[in-house]
Amino acid sequence: MISYEEVGQHNRAGDLWIIVHDQVYDLSAFEHPGGAAVIYQYAGRDATLAFDQIHSPGIVKALSAEQNMGSINPDTLPRNEEQSVEQANTILIKPSKPDLYSLISVHDFEDVAKHTLTAKAYAFYSSAATDLVSHQANLMCHRKLLLRPRVLRNVKEVNMRRRILGCESSAPFFLSPAAMAKLAHTEGELAVARACGEEGIAQVISSNASYPLAEIVAAGRPNQPFFLQLYVNSDRSKTEELLRHARELGVKGIFITVDAPVPGKREADERIAAEHVVAAISGAVATNDRKGGGLGRVMAKYIDPTFSWDDLTWIKGVSGLPLVLKGVQTAADARKAAQHGADGIFLSNHGGRSLDTTQPAILTLLEMHKCCPEVFGQLEIYVDGGFTRGTDILKAIALGATPVGIGRPWLYALTYGQGGLQHMMNIFRDELETSMKLSGITDVDDAHPGMVNTSLLEPLIRSSETHPWIKWQPRSRL
Amino acid sequence: MISYEEVGQHNRAGDLWIIVHDQVYDLSAFEHPGGAAVIYQYAGRDATLAFDQIHSPGIVKALSAEQNMGSINPDTLPRNEEQSVEQANTILIKPSKPDLYSLISVHDFEDVAKHTLTAKAYAFYSSAATDLVSHQANLMCHRKLLLRPRVLRNVKEVNMRRRILGCESSAPFFLSPAAMAKLAHTEGELAVARACGEEGIAQVISSNASYPLAEIVAAGRPNQPFFLQLYVNSDRSKTEELLRHARELGVKGIFITVDAPVPGKREADERIAAEHVVAAISGAVATNDRKGGGLGRVMAKYIDPTFSWDDLTWIKGVSGLPLVLKGVQTAADARKAAQHGADGIFLSNHGGRSLDTTQPAILTLLEMHKCCPEVFGQLEIYVDGGFTRGTDILKAIALGATPVGIGRPWLYALTYGQGGLQHMMNIFRDELETSMKLSGITDVDDAHPGMVNTSLLEPLIRSSETHPWIKWQPRSRL
Amino acid sequence: MISYEEVGQHNRAGDLWIIVHDQVYDLSAFEHPGGAAVIYQYAGRDATLAFDQIHSPGIVKALSAEQNMGSINPDTLPRNEEQSVEQANTILIKPSKPDLYSLISVHDFEDVAKHTLTAKAYAFYSSAATDLVSHQANLMCHRKLLLRPRVLRNVKEVNMRRRILGCESSAPFFLSPAAMAKLAHTEGELAVARACGEEGIAQVISSNASYPLAEIVAAGRPNQPFFLQLYVNSDRSKTEELLRHARELGVKGIFITVDAPVPGKREADERIAAEHVVAAISGAVATNDRKGGGLGRVMAKYIDPTFSWDDLTWIKGVSGLPLVLKGVQTAADARKAAQHGADGIFLSNHGGRSLDTTQPAILTLLEMHKCCPEVFGQLEIYVDGGFTRGTDILKAIALGATPVGIGRPWLYALTYGQGGLQHMMNIFRDELETSMKLSGITDVDDAHPGMVNTSLLEPLIRSSETHPWIKWQPRSRL
Amino acid sequence: MISYEEVGQHNRAGDLWIIVHDQVYDLSAFEHPGGAAVIYQYAGRDATLAFDQIHSPGIVKALSAEQNMGSINPDTLPRNEEQSVEQANTILIKPSKPDLYSLISVHDFEDVAKHTLTAKAYAFYSSAATDLVSHQANLMCHRKLLLRPRVLRNVKEVNMRRRILGCESSAPFFLSPAAMAKLAHTEGELAVARACGEEGIAQVISSNASYPLAEIVAAGRPNQPFFLQLYVNSDRSKTEELLRHARELGVKGIFITVDAPVPGKREADERIAAEHVVAAISGAVATNDRKGGGLGRVMAKYIDPTFSWDDLTWIKGVSGLPLVLKGVQTAADARKAAQHGADGIFLSNHGGRSLDTTQPAILTLLEMHKCCPEVFGQLEIYVDGGFTRGTDILKAIALGATPVGIGRPWLYALTYGQGGLQHMMNIFRDELETSMKLSGITDVDDAHPGMVNTSLLEPLIRSSETHPWIKWQPRSRL
Repeated sequence: MISYEEVGQHNRAGDLWIIVHDQVYDLSAFEHPGGAAVIYQYAGRDATLAFDQIHSPGIVKALSAEQNMGSINPDTLPRNEEQSVEQANTILIKPSKPDLYSLISVHDFEDVAKHTLTAKAYAFYSSAATDLVSHQANLMCHRKLLLRPRVLRNVKEVNMRRRILGCESSAPFFLSPAAMAKLAHTEGELAVARACGEEGIAQVISSNASYPLAEIVAAGRPNQPFFLQLYVNSDRSKTEELLRHARELGVKGIFITVDAPVPGKREADERIAAEHVVAAISGAVATNDRKGGGLGRVMAKYIDPTFSWDDLTWIKGVSGLPLVLKGVQTAADARKAAQHGADGIFLSNHGGRSLDTTQPAILTLLEMHKCCPEVFGQLEIYVDGGFTRGTDILKAIALGATPVGIGRPWLYALTYGQGGLQHMMNIFRDELETSMKLSGITDVDDAHPGMVNTSLLEPLIRSSETHPWIKWQPRSRL
Repeated sequence: MISYEEVGQHNRAGDLWIIVHDQVYDLSAFEHPGGAAVIYQYAGRDATLAFDQIHSPGIVKALSAEQNMGSINPDTLPRNEEQSVEQANTILIKPSKPDLYSLISVHDFEDVAKHTLTAKAYAFYSSAATDLVSHQANLMCHRKLLLRPRVLRNVKEVNMRRRILGCESSAPFFLSPAAMAKLAHTEGELAVARACGEEGIAQVISSNASYPLAEIVAAGRPNQPFFLQLYVNSDRSKTEELLRHARELGVKGIFITVDAPVPGKREADERIAAEHVVAAISGAVATNDRKGGGLGRVMAKYIDPTFSWDDLTWIKGVSGLPLVLKGVQTAADARKAAQHGADGIFLSNHGGRSLDTTQPAILTLLEMHKCCPEVFGQLEIYVDGGFTRGTDILKAIALGATPVGIGRPWLYALTYGQGGLQHMMNIFRDELETSMKLSGITDVDDAHPGMVNTSLLEPLIRSSETHPWIKWQPRSRL
Repeated sequence: MISYEEVGQHNRAGDLWIIVHDQVYDLSAFEHPGGAAVIYQYAGRDATLAFDQIHSPGIVKALSAEQNMGSINPDTLPRNEEQSVEQANTILIKPSKPDLYSLISVHDFEDVAKHTLTAKAYAFYSSAATDLVSHQANLMCHRKLLLRPRVLRNVKEVNMRRRILGCESSAPFFLSPAAMAKLAHTEGELAVARACGEEGIAQVISSNASYPLAEIVAAGRPNQPFFLQLYVNSDRSKTEELLRHARELGVKGIFITVDAPVPGKREADERIAAEHVVAAISGAVATNDRKGGGLGRVMAKYIDPTFSWDDLTWIKGVSGLPLVLKGVQTAADARKAAQHGADGIFLSNHGGRSLDTTQPAILTLLEMHKCCPEVFGQLEIYVDGGFTRGTDILKAIALGATPVGIGRPWLYALTYGQGGLQHMMNIFRDELETSMKLSGITDVDDAHPGMVNTSLLEPLIRSSETHPWIKWQPRSRL
Repeated sequence: MISYEEVGQHNRAGDLWIIVHDQVYDLSAFEHPGGAAVIYQYAGRDATLAFDQIHSPGIVKALSAEQNMGSINPDTLPRNEEQSVEQANTILIKPSKPDLYSLISVHDFEDVAKHTLTAKAYAFYSSAATDLVSHQANLMCHRKLLLRPRVLRNVKEVNMRRRILGCESSAPFFLSPAAMAKLAHTEGELAVARACGEEGIAQVISSNASYPLAEIVAAGRPNQPFFLQLYVNSDRSKTEELLRHARELGVKGIFITVDAPVPGKREADERIAAEHVVAAISGAVATNDRKGGGLGRVMAKYIDPTFSWDDLTWIKGVSGLPLVLKGVQTAADARKAAQHGADGIFLSNHGGRSLDTTQPAILTLLEMHKCCPEVFGQLEIYVDGGFTRGTDILKAIALGATPVGIGRPWLYALTYGQGGLQHMMNIFRDELETSMKLSGITDVDDAHPGMVNTSLLEPLIRSSETHPWIKWQPRSRL
């Protein structure tokens, strides 16, 4: 039994203990994948609440027995410790959530999440890069596509099933990868897997999931379709290990993120930690650097910024799984992906979280029709960004998307656990069914470009890789 | 005499009594056209207030004598029963309305309605589909058409009479069909019929009117023009019966709604019932499903989603009346309507209440000029959606509309009963007269496209049925 | 001496006395040009305050001696009479105005006017037709024209003098006609005339001025340029009399208003009187009709709606003065004006007060360059509507306007009397001088279209009288 | 020792003493470059606080010994004197600033400045001309350019160094000239020089700097790049003296401002002084004229409005330094600058502070690609106006700018002194680095027009010096 006072003396780099679930660990030599700062802020203190918010219980076992220094003597724990700012932030009494079935649209879930998640969790989920230009464009884009409904057709029965990377899906949408589902619900990605199993929807698991891959897959049904989102690690052996592990677990495909060699600047995320730390941290231990305390940035430190086209062969070789490139933003790269044998491309601006002022995926989809229509027959095309309505999904499918990815909405729905996710999926399916019937079609495979008036977006669509009329080139290009 | 306590014991599916106007009815076997839930919420209780708000007194006679179980013993009625949430909602003391003649524009009527109708009634009337994109586009559209007035013409006298489906009208507008006028005024559609008779305006009676068709027609003058809006019933014999009944009553034409094989998702409407029911309903009786409690959705359950082009011959055969297709939204369907012998088409996006992000009727009218100008000589063309000003009407007529339909405004004006409606019609006529004179014309038949600058809408007008430049087609189309 | 009680008995049509400045008048047979209702509201009561607000003291002499029934006995006047709603409205203690020279832009004058005029006066001055679309477009239009300044030119001295209808002006702007200046200041149009004399600016006097034409002209300097705005009276002999009178007084030209054969619907103006009267008026005497109590509408009753192109010869013959058509809104009518020998056209949508959703004058000016460029050499072209900055004026001149008319701003400046007007004129001249220098020109006659980027307005400019692509014509046209 | 009472008697033009740092000066014959009014307001009083806010301590030595009348007797100073409105405004207790490193974007600095600068200082820095149209367009412009990122490229290392007018810069941006840095921080331009030295960034020193040129240069490192912004003085010998002085101090180039022969009308700036002075000044001494009290306008009085193209030779001859024309706003003047041998042009609308409704510099840059692409090879092209993000800088460089100027942001950052400036520069560099990596480039010289979608701005780009379709010319041009 170790006293709290003793733990408190090991409170700096090189001599660093923390408490998790009444056990004391010596993390002096431990390298946290999110950087040392994450641990420093709990040096010499109890990190249980923060740990639970992000990690699955099993992950603590990854620490060797040597690192476990013994149990904390509960009599020595100070009452005030529970009042630390970090923990207060976590355990704030939250407003109670309304009855799940009083929520009737995806927007309702966002409202609830905003008022019931911790400020930090909501900031991490909802934030986007710098001035939010791309984030807002994503949302606005769907409103600018007009539907052209045909009338007087028999629309009694509707079929919306679609195959995604060889797997059956009950609807033409899937869950986009998003990090750290535990911030929304203690069951995190496990609840997601169960909901997807019930509803026949595919889940793309984030590299930064809060539960281990094996646990998530185990939570699903036999043969349930899972895909793995991948950030390539600067230590490539770790990536190889992960890919083999995924294959063994029966994961059906790999989604490599290609639009985030470095993290975008999400200021809402940076700010919350920053404010917190300025108020609460003292002494030599600093948990924030001078850029703030962004969770997204901290988690991105291991990503390999040298990863490029020629490395795709290596990924395919190691995994032996279908490959989707997530974050393609130009027709030029779509064509290049097809040439490099990708099985799919995921048109996305990362929910506006990566580089600001990039175009919404819908515009890239339209650009492809202008610049490389042949690619539509060569691989599957996924899109995401601001999809909140059945009409949004229908338009993207009509314009040639294979399926549509749902991102933030499932994080918000997860505040209600598995049931929340299933309700959200049903809302999307209901809205899509109504939209199909009111548009005059009964099979999602009949959706076609003539159903959509794209006029309002047309002035924005680029039709060539080079600038259409500026001939000037920088000296380095001549 | 039956005691209130006894009624209360018949409070579930299969054994269900309700009280209406001091009479007890056994509705265990009754099929309500709006679905069972509508009745369940009053199972074992007094439904008088809710009944009166929606139905005409005569309709209770439709129940057979067997269903009438006798009178309620008034001494057994609880005082508190009157305080049930549903009834409280209905009988809330409403703010007094301003003097009718202090209202000088259609917008004023909406303001009054918003503050004096029950929350549920206002939600049902004013709500539109999902994100209100089409609803707002309808309103904005009129502001984007610019008038081009000519000066120095003798404009002393103005003629604005026009024939609509063979009937004389004092002005180039009519009342679009809208359900359940009793929510605005106890005299409901009867007051509307009387106002239309006084002012020489045509009324399209909704299939979901709160008074029986015969009573409404009887409230009018001899030979007053009435049209019947029709939702085709899944039980087509009921539709045949209704059509024959309408013809016998002297109805002049049938407006079949073709843009709502299933109901649109009107969230404001869904929400109010939902909130109400969550708070007030207990036990096994549930009045809401998991989608909310939308009045519009509940009432749409009997509509036949298989109704299609080939069924038009049947309708014409049964009714023998002129036929207008309400809800045409593309030039392609306008042409098809002409080919199928329709007497008129009603360009409309259902006031933005059906499928969201569809285009306003004015855009469909312009699309017809691009794609099928020949149709203008083949049938009458009606438009509605957001018409609140005389200038709005003048522009639509100048662009080729036969008459313009007025929708929500008459529901709002009806809060003042017959007088309110007449005042509203006079405001529209005054504004139209002023607009004609200030535009330099004196006969509505002289209104022509050169009077309107359509430049701001032009980028949105589609000129072909297929997408103008995307060649890709879904596999199912190849 | 007549008692107040006795006056009160003559309080109806056919037997109607009023009190003005302690004198009692019998107006039983008097025809007020604004309609009988204006007088009825003071029947049997003291009308002094209302009279002073609108009329010059001299005008009471127009009543014959017979109509003067004698003096009121002051002892009989009730104290409460001073508290009538109409008068209370007029004599409300108003907030004090800030120091004149703390006002540095035209917008500042509007702010002050809004807070210091009576509600009715501000409503009458500031209101515009129905939904204010044209009014707001007028203001926005100037912001959408971009200036293209040239640099490194000697801009030490600037000349901005310009001839307007043959008269010298110190700047390329003049005061547009506007009714009832007394609502802003007791000296009304007299103060305007004095300010214009001091500053060398031309004044167009409204037919509905609150002082007689002779008094206004007399307030000016010898040979100071005055023009007369004219509404043709249904009793044309009155118009002839006015024209001859104007000529004798030395008025330099006639501006016939051609865009208002009937008054526009200005709801802010209608509403105030309406609300007031509903609250305060009792008995059979009604001052409002069912359309409200709009001052603009009431004053327009005498206007002849049959006045048309062929009548221009008559006007020129009677007056022998140069003629400007005020309210031309299309290139087609501009061409027609030139053909009918007009000396000038005044492009204007009446400050957005006549027909709503018409285009700003700047768009008509651009339309003329497209459709009838030859007209620029045939007559003078005036524009007004939303000019509040020196840059606004410079752009209009660069695009071919002869001078620019200033409307509402001078009414607002008049709250400070003559000094306010002169300060406003100096602000406009200062801003124009700065704008010229910063644009790189030193003479207003050097302003040319190349200085203005008109791109943002171009999609709106019409280039033909007929609709550019709709071929359909109403049957009456075929 | 002079008594305060005696000083107070010399309080008018021609007999004017003031107190600065306990010394009394006779300024009866002194000509203040900002005009006499600046001094008049302290006539007979203590001007120390105002003096310190604007001038460096050394500048008082410029007054001759004769002008120093002796020391003030401190016992005679009134307590109340410290309470004069001007001084109260200066010494108001300001809210404390947040920790520097909690600021993570340039917008944060503006927020802090708004709440911690004096109202007058913030008004002077932030204000722009009249209706702020150009100022807002500058900011909006950057959001309308879309980036087109390429993926899967090795982006580990980034180079963003660039040469500016022959000098090495650590990044492709520099500090635009801005007047009176002492209003933000007592060390003013000295702190700026030190920060630039540390970070390898070039500084353009304003003619209206609050420290003497020699002191600023001395604060920097040896060979640190300084440029001098120049307003040509009406007394050209003073300009010659300044140019020779700059050359001797090692200044590397001259930026002549060509877009402000007269000052723009910045109302926020005018208003504050105006309000203040109206309240506090009495007697014959007036510090405000009737246009307000704008600091920008007052300081511009010495500028020579006759300065034009032919004078450039004189400047080059006298200074012998590279010459940049600051404020070029059309392709026509860009071409002319190249013809006159300018070494660079600075596309700028003066931060929207000069002539309102002029186009943002980005539009002029695009106009140059249309009208005079050859100029890109003939001189360096600088742009500024609303640059607040790394993405903004990247886009301008990709479109052909040599470097980008940062204006208001550094004034706001200076509220934190040298450290604030360095932090701001690091934020810009971090954002630029992230933007480059996420765009798929690693060298700023590889940025090219194909990276930017300019579609949203294209309708605004002019392609000729004359108006594209209006043929009409004013008579003076024919």
